[in-house]
Amino acid sequence: MASIFSKIIARDLPGNLVYETDSELAFLDINPSTVGHTLVVPKREVAAFHELPEAEAASLAAAVQVVAKGVIRAMDTPHYNLALNNGAPAGQVVFHVHFHVIPRYEGQPRVRHGAYGPGEAEQVAEKIREALQGMGYSTPE
Amino acid sequence: MASIFSKIIARDLPGNLVYETDSELAFLDINPSTVGHTLVVPKREVAAFHELPEAEAASLAAAVQVVAKGVIRAMDTPHYNLALNNGAPAGQVVFHVHFHVIPRYEGQPRVRHGAYGPGEAEQVAEKIREALQGMGYSTPE
Repeated sequence: MASIFSKIIARDLPGNLVYETDSELAFLDINPSTVGHTLVVPKREVAAFHELPEAEAASLAAAVQVVAKGVIRAMDTPHYNLALNNGAPAGQVVFHVHFHVIPRYEGQPRVRHGAYGPGEAEQVAEKIREALQGMGYSTPE
Repeated sequence: MASIFSKIIARDLPGNLVYETDSELAFLDINPSTVGHTLVVPKREVAAFHELPEAEAASLAAAVQVVAKGVIRAMDTPHYNLALNNGAPAGQVVFHVHFHVIPRYEGQPRVRHGAYGPGEAEQVAEKIREALQGMGYSTPE
């Protein structure tokens, strides 16, 4: 069965998309740790990071860099955490590789922001897309 | 001034080294979250992940994959967290890019293990080097 991320990639489920390449898609985490928390996933559904072919891991790393730059500019903070959980005991919930890009704000601990309010996620995603466009990257519709 | 990681890379400071390429070095975290917690660093000293040239980020990702495979085999668990902290408010302490590879054990929370006991780190590093050698990777002295 396709993962929830594969359904977002196929546009069978909605997502607040911010960046897309031939092999990766990035979208907001719907249960963000901080405002702007974004997931970067390979389009091909693989559960474990270390099982990605090296070229796909390399491409994913490049996409994470682009998303980090977009989040930095959009959220106006240079600080972030990257995280990837592999295996249920490590906190993996969706068994489709995903890097978390979590912006961090001066003086604010990393506590769960909770779900976005009405229209908030759309606005945050739009800011990140605009930031990426401003740096010359193309962004999904 | 060279970072503490650059000093380990230069062999000016000791480290429990587990894996080395032309452009990366991996060694045990001296204050591990769990037994086997390993850091993977680019040899070139750059503070921010998103500022690494794309090829260097790609090479780093490949090295992280290799280290994850070695840690999985050596520590006999398929589960791990990857983490990278960028900026002091995100928890970055050494301003030289480093990925954490943190093995996770069934039923054990991610709590600080505390410093290794006498000889323990050397034994853990040796296990990881042996695992990598068993997969055909060359390891540092």
